[in-house]
Amino acid sequence: MSVAISMDQKKKSQASIQPLIDLVRPDMGRVNELILEKAGSDVQMIPEVANHLIDSGGKRLRPMLTLAAAQMCGYDSEGQGLDGHVKLAMAVEFMHTATLLHDDVVDESDMRRGKLAARMLWGNQASVLVGDFLLGQAFRVMVDVGSLQALDVLSTAACVIAEGEVLQLSVAQNMKTTRAEYMEVIRSKTAALFAAASEVGPILANRPNQEIVALRTYGLELGNAFQLIDDALDYGGSAADLGKNVGDDFREGKITLPVILANERGSEEDKAFWKRVMEDRKFDESDLAHAMKLLDETKALEETLQQARQAGADAIAALDVLPDSAHKSALIDAVEFCISRAH
Amino acid sequence: MSVAISMDQKKKSQASIQPLIDLVRPDMGRVNELILEKAGSDVQMIPEVANHLIDSGGKRLRPMLTLAAAQMCGYDSEGQGLDGHVKLAMAVEFMHTATLLHDDVVDESDMRRGKLAARMLWGNQASVLVGDFLLGQAFRVMVDVGSLQALDVLSTAACVIAEGEVLQLSVAQNMKTTRAEYMEVIRSKTAALFAAASEVGPILANRPNQEIVALRTYGLELGNAFQLIDDALDYGGSAADLGKNVGDDFREGKITLPVILANERGSEEDKAFWKRVMEDRKFDESDLAHAMKLLDETKALEETLQQARQAGADAIAALDVLPDSAHKSALIDAVEFCISRAH
Repeated sequence: MSVAISMDQKKKSQASIQPLIDLVRPDMGRVNELILEKAGSDVQMIPEVANHLIDSGGKRLRPMLTLAAAQMCGYDSEGQGLDGHVKLAMAVEFMHTATLLHDDVVDESDMRRGKLAARMLWGNQASVLVGDFLLGQAFRVMVDVGSLQALDVLSTAACVIAEGEVLQLSVAQNMKTTRAEYMEVIRSKTAALFAAASEVGPILANRPNQEIVALRTYGLELGNAFQLIDDALDYGGSAADLGKNVGDDFREGKITLPVILANERGSEEDKAFWKRVMEDRKFDESDLAHAMKLLDETKALEETLQQARQAGADAIAALDVLPDSAHKSALIDAVEFCISRAH
Repeated sequence: MSVAISMDQKKKSQASIQPLIDLVRPDMGRVNELILEKAGSDVQMIPEVANHLIDSGGKRLRPMLTLAAAQMCGYDSEGQGLDGHVKLAMAVEFMHTATLLHDDVVDESDMRRGKLAARMLWGNQASVLVGDFLLGQAFRVMVDVGSLQALDVLSTAACVIAEGEVLQLSVAQNMKTTRAEYMEVIRSKTAALFAAASEVGPILANRPNQEIVALRTYGLELGNAFQLIDDALDYGGSAADLGKNVGDDFREGKITLPVILANERGSEEDKAFWKRVMEDRKFDESDLAHAMKLLDETKALEETLQQARQAGADAIAALDVLPDSAHKSALIDAVEFCISRAH
């Protein structure tokens, strides 16, 4: 069921997230400790639900961006033991975790990261409320850091994410969704948090606006690439890569770029197919195989990956204003790693 | 179906929220404008869902507390047109609205403030996500005010509220719930926001800690009184007073103080009744009438109202450290008004 798309094999083999992981390892240890501490509560159900998701092996890419951006910009360069970047990285991860808990309720998902979704074990109620708790803890920790500029960036991201999720809901099961609307959804629901996670690094380090914009743009385009790849993989990855099932977007009637492109380029018969499955929600599992055939024939998946590569190139280009460093290389590698997930 | 409890008739007839409404009227107009502005979004579903609840005639008691406390403490006393209190009052109301949207999903409620709950019109999904959006907007506006101390108070309240909601979920349908656990639930889920709403007034006005503690305590005890009355009214009010149906807590298996007391004081037969309806969830509408009879016979409702009156007295006593003023009188009247709802 896997759709292989050609890519520069040299890049693919080099692409690794390892340099990023290595650079942030000590600080990431502090983030992980803080995550455990702040997911704690005398109300036993809170750490149970939170840790179910926290322990489920997410890559923690977003907090790594915060740590790497802060380090690259010289925050705590004299080793004074400053912890603003650790706290903001934790807050970013909690914002993400809260979104996942709420998403599972909204999408009625059964699985998350290859495990039963929290809502299947503790109910929708606990997923909603523990999500609210984690969002509250994220804000408390951000406030503790004391940077009003970072608070502004992260609270704005929280709004934009929710706005993107509502927009996604509004356009769900609607084949009139345009490419522009799709790009707005992924920019808001995914890329906004990548952007904010990266941007708060130079803010903490009091760097000039040019560097803040550079890292925000890097994060934004990386986030766009990440979501484009995710949406392509939904029709061509393996369940192990995805932590969910192939075809989940299809079954939920989520209109993603591959579907928009396949519909645009399809015959009248194809358009009737997409309308039946996506809008009228009449389909069975054999229709998923037919959808994947159409996505392949119309080169819709190929163009989705091409768009992801373009976003990745834009992310890398945004870093041009920053001097070369091990951190800059690691951030570039991280882009290539995200894109190589599709192979 | 109404349970009348005796109270000092003089107090009852005087008790009015009107002085508070009159004192904050001009600022409340600014709050209402800001509410409409900040509930706006290019994503059409957001203002639709938000305004359904915002326009439904809530009393806006919490933002009134913020405005009155700030005015009483001399914030903007020279009429410079400062708007920190207006912004924080709006943020407090959005935090409350977000909680209501999420509560309706958690409780599977059909009605809210005498109208269909948003989730019945737009689905659980929209209620969760628009709640998230409003919470995000609340934080953005708080950040805009720029007081880290007020941000700390309000973000802590957000966590405590969520914690209280999860605790309520944990003890639901469990007749072993103690009075102390019940008091912890209402302190967290309701009183914490009343406390924060009141406390940020003196914080904005840079008043000494003694006044901050006084107004926090006032808000906390008023919130406790408010929730105790609400829980009593669920078994003895009219649907018009409640904006929901009499017996909703009963039908949801919510263990409130009246039920805890009636169970403690009941015969073995009574205890078996409470276990059957609250834990085993086996009941019909005739059981509600029996429940109300037991609550009356054991004086469980009467003691609940007595506890509310005590909390109200504690709220009023907390204001002793503040000089007499029209604002102080209005805040005292507001306590008596809240308690007189039960008559």
